[in-house]
Amino acid sequence: MAKLKKQPRPKAETPKGFRDYFGYELIQRQRLLNDISEVYQLYGFSALESSAVETVEALGKFLPDIDRPNEGVFAWEEDDTWLALRYDLTAPLARVYAQFRNDLPNPYRRYSMGPVWRNEKPGLGRYRQFYQCDADTVGSSNLAADVEICTLLCDALEAAGINRGDYIVKVNNRKILNGVMEVAGLLKPNDVDYKIHERGIVLRAIDKLDRLGVRNISELLGNGRKDDSGDFTKGANLSEEQIKIILSFVQSKGSTGAKTIGNLTDLVKGSAVGLVGVNELETILELNESQGYMSDRVYLDPSVVRGLGYYTGPVYEAELTFQVLDENGSKRSFGSVAGGGRYDDLIKRFTGQEVPATGISIGVDRIMAALAANDDQPTSPIGPVVVTVMDKSMLASYQNIASELRSAGIPAEVYMGNPKNFGNQLKYADKRNSPIAIIEGSEEVGKGVIQLKDLLLGSEIAKGATLEQWKSQPAQTEVLRDNLVAEVRKILNRDR
Amino acid sequence: MAKLKKQPRPKAETPKGFRDYFGYELIQRQRLLNDISEVYQLYGFSALESSAVETVEALGKFLPDIDRPNEGVFAWEEDDTWLALRYDLTAPLARVYAQFRNDLPNPYRRYSMGPVWRNEKPGLGRYRQFYQCDADTVGSSNLAADVEICTLLCDALEAAGINRGDYIVKVNNRKILNGVMEVAGLLKPNDVDYKIHERGIVLRAIDKLDRLGVRNISELLGNGRKDDSGDFTKGANLSEEQIKIILSFVQSKGSTGAKTIGNLTDLVKGSAVGLVGVNELETILELNESQGYMSDRVYLDPSVVRGLGYYTGPVYEAELTFQVLDENGSKRSFGSVAGGGRYDDLIKRFTGQEVPATGISIGVDRIMAALAANDDQPTSPIGPVVVTVMDKSMLASYQNIASELRSAGIPAEVYMGNPKNFGNQLKYADKRNSPIAIIEGSEEVGKGVIQLKDLLLGSEIAKGATLEQWKSQPAQTEVLRDNLVAEVRKILNRDR
Repeated sequence: MAKLKKQPRPKAETPKGFRDYFGYELIQRQRLLNDISEVYQLYGFSALESSAVETVEALGKFLPDIDRPNEGVFAWEEDDTWLALRYDLTAPLARVYAQFRNDLPNPYRRYSMGPVWRNEKPGLGRYRQFYQCDADTVGSSNLAADVEICTLLCDALEAAGINRGDYIVKVNNRKILNGVMEVAGLLKPNDVDYKIHERGIVLRAIDKLDRLGVRNISELLGNGRKDDSGDFTKGANLSEEQIKIILSFVQSKGSTGAKTIGNLTDLVKGSAVGLVGVNELETILELNESQGYMSDRVYLDPSVVRGLGYYTGPVYEAELTFQVLDENGSKRSFGSVAGGGRYDDLIKRFTGQEVPATGISIGVDRIMAALAANDDQPTSPIGPVVVTVMDKSMLASYQNIASELRSAGIPAEVYMGNPKNFGNQLKYADKRNSPIAIIEGSEEVGKGVIQLKDLLLGSEIAKGATLEQWKSQPAQTEVLRDNLVAEVRKILNRDR
Repeated sequence: MAKLKKQPRPKAETPKGFRDYFGYELIQRQRLLNDISEVYQLYGFSALESSAVETVEALGKFLPDIDRPNEGVFAWEEDDTWLALRYDLTAPLARVYAQFRNDLPNPYRRYSMGPVWRNEKPGLGRYRQFYQCDADTVGSSNLAADVEICTLLCDALEAAGINRGDYIVKVNNRKILNGVMEVAGLLKPNDVDYKIHERGIVLRAIDKLDRLGVRNISELLGNGRKDDSGDFTKGANLSEEQIKIILSFVQSKGSTGAKTIGNLTDLVKGSAVGLVGVNELETILELNESQGYMSDRVYLDPSVVRGLGYYTGPVYEAELTFQVLDENGSKRSFGSVAGGGRYDDLIKRFTGQEVPATGISIGVDRIMAALAANDDQPTSPIGPVVVTVMDKSMLASYQNIASELRSAGIPAEVYMGNPKNFGNQLKYADKRNSPIAIIEGSEEVGKGVIQLKDLLLGSEIAKGATLEQWKSQPAQTEVLRDNLVAEVRKILNRDR
């Protein structure tokens, strides 16, 4: 350490786009993850935590012609191998399944939760590290597996505290998009590379429809678009006719599911893959309904395509429909909190053999934000009982008080700061949202009593009062030392 | 995805030194973390999760003269800033405290749990990503805070399932080591840089005493040491006399704590800092005893120094004392599972002001390994009830069965693989450690019944039997469909 003193002081800052989580937020997240994983377990999914670090090769996100890893991941070179932080939990699952496929059950149904990292431009509420909570079925081509993902998603959202009616699971199928691409002349059935660049732009443009609206999307499909900041994004350079076909796809939602299916069928006429997609979509909706997940919870939305490149069939997106105020104070619906789909080719990259797979990823931070936005009166959690230090020589006695309370399951601590200024001790207790400060001096010991200062009551009384006034409030009781636990409980129970 | 097909197949492997965690192991770890964090909360510590990524500058682990980050961390450059994965939870705490000190309570008592990453040579049971679970008090110079860390550590280990008598918390003080360094002429009170390089080697050598023994350590203190693989480690080049002083320090343990204190006092005679260290150590042991943590749980061991550079006073190390077999089949005690100490200068790096701090880090993977080593009959957890698929057209009925069971809190799933081969369905159920396979065909529906195949009983019976024989075992019952949940419960309760 000594040498470091001569250096300029380091900045006490998280790197750009990263953040820390404190106290109550973490307790709430753990509760949320427990609630969601309980549903996953009820559905028969078992836990997996893959390594946070993968080879760039295994993650499959790299530019083909240069040795710099792709933008979008945090990567570095180690002993001639490029390593990266995982950007989602799906790509690592594909690696895990390929690596352990001889030992894993088939199908392999797993859930995972944990942080993922993306090297993206950070923004308001957009961080470079965030939590996902996924469930996937690997090794099943059965559409029942996709249906199950939809019902699982509904059940998980409700377990997370999102009320029925406040969310909707939108379903679509990438094969229909492929059909539309064929009709628009952007895809040829036997040439996977044909116009792959343009199709990538179209996919990303449609995925932004919600945020940017139809007009901006047509610019992205055409010559390109300049955004508010002046940045220009190159377009797909489609013809008017092609743009019209793509736009009629994303706008093909009818007044009922059946009408939407009819519109889609018309749209992909002549494309084999497109018609397969429409059929799959119809089956998924029927099976959902047969299990009681009707169109008030799961419905068809042709504008949902999901941005990730690896989806091959059904895609899902959960949206929260209640209104929140945005940064400008205008109302908007909360938006997407989960997404997923079928990715039949991702494992094949490793094994050469086709392994169908489907799954969902819940954005934990998004759900946390939604719950917070919906919570009118967020209450601070009650802190520990604070045993104040009146007399430094009585430390052992104070520790015994704390220890007795802990044994009774009541969080408690002896004040560990400099005890000289008693006001600081009370300020500390206040900052911890401590329910009770315990005071014991030699006088109390002589009488076999202790003082309990009811801080929550005190702070109620003291709204607007100064610390001096507050200290004189009568919210302090003398109780028998022997009755410590019972008397503390009495106050705690009243405050609840 | 299409473009990737033309590339050579990626290897399905975790990077060297990384691993994945499956199923039961994760459930157990979560339970362990819950148990430990409950103790931390009872002691009044509140939760913190700092960013996994920090600036190299904030972590403070870098070589002064070159722009490559230090070995030991995983680091990369991003927009002209070197970033790194955290190598522990203490350095990030120092950054968090410095960043948010105006908003945090003072003292700040926090616990953290999560993975840390070290760019070290991986080995048997040594991974580059592992879990830590820490508790620290920042802003208290009070030795009571150190004592509390010791009692907290004992309580946390017992909550984690380590029996009293199976662990010991060893205590020492870096100031005594500094005193010994002064006596040996390796440290001058007013020249922090004096022989800093040699002292670093001495510190790391002592920290390896347990593993390498006295003879190898004296080589490291002297001219250096060649290990079994032929690698040579440079020594501190101390004189015979200096080596003698260092060795008498690490071997100064007497038959009682008082005798050890006597030995240490003799050893650091003439060093002011050394005597302060001995006094602090005595006080810590006394306070521990006054709280009932006697020398069967907390004792003084002069050979404990901890390898990390930032400790400035008391240091602690928890060791598990029960015997395990090592890779060669010889018995040895399990060894260290937690460590910590006081680090009064770490936050000063950021703020320029002294902020005393002390804390402990529990090695979660080490505790997991200890619990596993102590567990004679590890039992696989019971998997979900598997609803088999006899007739693909009856899928809705199968989903209803699974859904009914889930509503009753019983994990259940419909088989999602290819249903053609019924044997595969039973093999799947077996691999999931499923307690019951449910069988329903059109015949059963007609009679209003279903078949429950008791798989755990079946597998008991079938030990050594072939799959064919096993299938013919009588562990299958026909029950009324209406009694599904009750009948399933009956079997589950019997198996427990």
